[in-house]
Amino acid sequence: MSDHPEAPVTPVAAHEPPYYLAVFSAVRTQDQSGFGETNARMEDLVRNIPGFLGMDHAQTPGGLGITVGYFRDPDALAQWRTHAEHRAAQQHGRAEWYENYTLHVAKVERSHGFVRADGPATE
Amino acid sequence: MSDHPEAPVTPVAAHEPPYYLAVFSAVRTQDQSGFGETNARMEDLVRNIPGFLGMDHAQTPGGLGITVGYFRDPDALAQWRTHAEHRAAQQHGRAEWYENYTLHVAKVERSHGFVRADGPATE
Repeated sequence: MSDHPEAPVTPVAAHEPPYYLAVFSAVRTQDQSGFGETNARMEDLVRNIPGFLGMDHAQTPGGLGITVGYFRDPDALAQWRTHAEHRAAQQHGRAEWYENYTLHVAKVERSHGFVRADGPATE
Repeated sequence: MSDHPEAPVTPVAAHEPPYYLAVFSAVRTQDQSGFGETNARMEDLVRNIPGFLGMDHAQTPGGLGITVGYFRDPDALAQWRTHAEHRAAQQHGRAEWYENYTLHVAKVERSHGFVRADGPATE
């Protein structure tokens, strides 16, 4: 999944509001043929959208997956929403890969982050 | 975790916009003493907030956890944000349980859901 297996996991940072996010919460079907390849391709594509700020994903084994994508403005989000390959993948997802999902698109009004300071090296 | 282990997992449904959501994306520390009890207590408390619409959670083992809470309006969100027990739990979280986290609070502008229709029984 990553070229840097040692890198610590950190969520997408808080940006200066306003910006946009899309929450995609989904339960997948048993048959995931082709999902991995398409998912990797979508990750490549979205990173090339001007105004894409980053993406977080968490997956409970056998349960819910949540992906949150962050975008600078409505234009960036619209570019991603209307991307031809993305639309084809969405159609495929409804036909094959998803049992159910909900998508919420929202304008961020405030945000903040926290990073632990007291690592062992500083004590 | 649930009294209904057979119930299918489904994410919180799309509501009529506008409504609010809070995305909390976090990586936890090694020492999770007391986390489970406090987390369960917070789940009980938030469900009693008038205007609370629901909550989704996904957790990648050993990685990122994402919790998304949904609220009818800013008042509901403010009640939760300023709840005394919740504030104490947040403080404890920064002191003990979280390596890092990001919180994004956003106003939902549109949403939709999908549920697979073609179960085996209908074929």
